[in-house]
Amino acid sequence: MGRTSDARARLVTSAAEFVYARGYQGVSVEELCERAGVKKGSFYHFFRSKQGLALAALDEQWKLAQEGLVEPAFKNDVPPLDRIGRFFEWVAAASSHEQETTGQVGGCRFGNLSAEMGSRDPAIRAKVESVFQAIAGYFERALEEAVAVGDLSGVDPAANAQALVAYMEGILLLGRTYNDPDLMKRLGRKAVQLACSGHVRDEHRDDLRIEKEANS
Amino acid sequence: MGRTSDARARLVTSAAEFVYARGYQGVSVEELCERAGVKKGSFYHFFRSKQGLALAALDEQWKLAQEGLVEPAFKNDVPPLDRIGRFFEWVAAASSHEQETTGQVGGCRFGNLSAEMGSRDPAIRAKVESVFQAIAGYFERALEEAVAVGDLSGVDPAANAQALVAYMEGILLLGRTYNDPDLMKRLGRKAVQLACSGHVRDEHRDDLRIEKEANS
Repeated sequence: MGRTSDARARLVTSAAEFVYARGYQGVSVEELCERAGVKKGSFYHFFRSKQGLALAALDEQWKLAQEGLVEPAFKNDVPPLDRIGRFFEWVAAASSHEQETTGQVGGCRFGNLSAEMGSRDPAIRAKVESVFQAIAGYFERALEEAVAVGDLSGVDPAANAQALVAYMEGILLLGRTYNDPDLMKRLGRKAVQLACSGHVRDEHRDDLRIEKEANS
Repeated sequence: MGRTSDARARLVTSAAEFVYARGYQGVSVEELCERAGVKKGSFYHFFRSKQGLALAALDEQWKLAQEGLVEPAFKNDVPPLDRIGRFFEWVAAASSHEQETTGQVGGCRFGNLSAEMGSRDPAIRAKVESVFQAIAGYFERALEEAVAVGDLSGVDPAANAQALVAYMEGILLLGRTYNDPDLMKRLGRKAVQLACSGHVRDEHRDDLRIEKEANS
């Protein structure tokens, strides 16, 4: 058994791994302690509950994803729209590597937890929401820069950023469901086109017509 | 306690509701039997396990979704691309109604289950995959028809159909995470633009360049 500070870190790492592999409800505090080599009494020194540990694990996982993938993908060494393309490319590459090592594309740690617990646990839902907001921020800044340098016009960066988060989450869920990182790579290539989607007048007219028909 | 045939149907309905609200691992066979008013011995007359019941519930839920939403949305009373717009509009409207009645946007019954259990339970994963494939089929046929009548050109209907399934699942997951059906409605309006996305040569060049840089 290591130092106290290590015990907390080991619990966080174990929770991140175990919850991702088995779901939040598929793992108990006892199992997490056993895996981390931490006594149950020590667990409650660091966390009030399994929920508290799961939230800490989400913070840690977001920090790692941000440092290892998000920040490098959005680095300004390439034009802003290429950063978005590169991000989707790297998400698929990470899933490909994951499948090679574990046999299974796991999808999104954050999205999976919202899908399992989002309607039952407001704190977990809010944490995942804050991660989605942070990712949307990266997309939005890249789109704003693309507009500023003249690579893009006629778009709403905030709205398209949310669409890209939705598409990213959908790609990760399809990757998990089909266990197919190549599908993720192909779908990711359409992200830049979604990023560039503008307000089409004809489409708005269609929306109005469809609403009218749906209500009639 | 009703007739035997009712008992099975009540178990399936209870499982669909309970698993959607609490997750697959958040509900036990005992609770499902109690909710359905069925004795545990009878449960095993109909199903070998909780998994068997969950699979039957997924079949039933897909049948209901198909009859109540998917088939009507893709009806040929409007041009093919409008059917896709209408489908996304109605998915958001259904989530809006759900929030009004339960307080919470629940997202996708199928996607949620894949996100929780997909990497642990091959049968559940395969069932969700078959539902996604069925939905992709509706998109693909609409896109093929749009090409046939000249509303669309230069697209790969099968590839764009998969992109639309991903986008739909992402919208449902964001709707659940943000508990916001209006966001779903706004995001859904971009679906037709994604449906029309073609093969952009410049983008392929970017992909190659990004791959080269990622490997360097």
